[in-house]
Order: sequence, then C-alpha cells, then structure tokens
Amino acid sequence: MRKRKIGEKELTIAVAQDAKTKQVLMVAFQDEEAFQKTRETGEMYFYSTSKRKLWRKGEVSGNTMAVKGTRVDCDGDALLYLVDSKGGACHEGYDSCFYRDFDGKIVGKKLFDPKDVY
Amino acid sequence: MRKRKIGEKELTIAVAQDAKTKQVLMVAFQDEEAFQKTRETGEMYFYSTSKRKLWRKGEVSGNTMAVKGTRVDCDGDALLYLVDSKGGACHEGYDSCFYRDFDGKIVGKKLFDPKDVY
Repeated sequence: MRKRKIGEKELTIAVAQDAKTKQVLMVAFQDEEAFQKTRETGEMYFYSTSKRKLWRKGEVSGNTMAVKGTRVDCDGDALLYLVDSKGGACHEGYDSCFYRDFDGKIVGKKLFDPKDVY
Repeated sequence: MRKRKIGEKELTIAVAQDAKTKQVLMVAFQDEEAFQKTRETGEMYFYSTSKRKLWRKGEVSGNTMAVKGTRVDCDGDALLYLVDSKGGACHEGYDSCFYRDFDGKIVGKKLFDPKDVY
C-alpha cells in the first residue's frame, strides 16, 4: 500500500463498507501498525489522527467491525474494507458516519444515543 | 466541509459510489474549486494531486460521473457522492478503481483497454 502525508503522518485512506448492504460506513486512516493489526485479527483498526494512536474500532462503544473482504485501489493509496458492522459505525449513534446530505438533511438511521456510550 | 493537509494542500476526501449498484468506484480529493464546480455542474470534479490542478472526471476518457446524491461524514472531512458513472471509473479500464483484493486477485470488471483511451 502507498501512504500519503496526511496531517503530520504517512497514512493510507481506509474506507469501511457494509459487506451486505453496501452502505459506506466510514472513512478513516491506517498507518502500518493499524494495517497489520487488521490483517492479523480480522477486526478493523485505524490510526486516530485526533488521539494520535492506534484505534481499535469499537474499543469504547463495542461497535466493532469484522473484515469480510478487502480491496485496494489502482494507485494503492486507498483501501476498501468490506465489513460486518456490529451496532452503529458512527460515534454520533448512526448506522453510518455519512448520515447527512450536503443540505444537512438526516438520511441515516439512529441506532443508539451517544450519551449512553461515551 | 473540513479540509486536511494532504501532501502540500488542504483537501477533502471525496468518495464516489455508484448510486444504483452501491459499488465504491474511487477515492480522490477535492479542494474548494473542485467542490464548487461539482455543485454547480452536477458532474464530478476533483483536485488532481499528481497534476496539481482541477480535474474534471472523464475529461480525457469521456467517462464522466453525474452526481445523484450527496453525503458528508460526521466530522466533515470526507464527502460521499452517489453517482451515475459513464464507462469505467478507473483509468486502468475497470468499472471501479478497487478492482483488486489485498492478495492481488482481480475482482473488477474490465470495461475498456487503457491503450485505446490514453
């Protein structure tokens, strides 16, 4: 995989897509460690650019993602993971982080109240 | 939308997904100009990080993308466009840029020979 300088770090873009519904759930980043941990465990790991550390998806919320399939794009700087998402993917309680359109209209499904989780 | 320093420029990640099949077609970037041009025209524009300029998707290949729906993610640094993709999305001739899995197995559909186009 190819990395890009994103903020302060060399990272690869990682997209998670629901393996069954094909809904795009989230876009985040992976460094080498997150990539390898994901390969080894079959669970999604990212590099958190805000916390500047390895982030196991669902480590707080319990909403983990199990990898069911993998794709790499033509120039290798973006990875696509087909996943089985447990609970809502978004920390705001929705099924997907892409729960709004450009006009702010809510198009996602609310699955939990963030206050109950974080 | 929120931008991140990606390489030398402040950019937003833009994912194109087929509005009908839900296949993820490509991941690229938008600066303000590409974002606005896309809004105005209803056709996908990106910022090319290799050519360092505005890039109308399909300007060479004719394989344009018409915007059918929009999504923004929770923290605003990634945009998802639901598109009607004309011809193959990938410059390597495939339906999607994500035509290989991590083991290199071809899982995409070849729609044209790049030699005939570029």
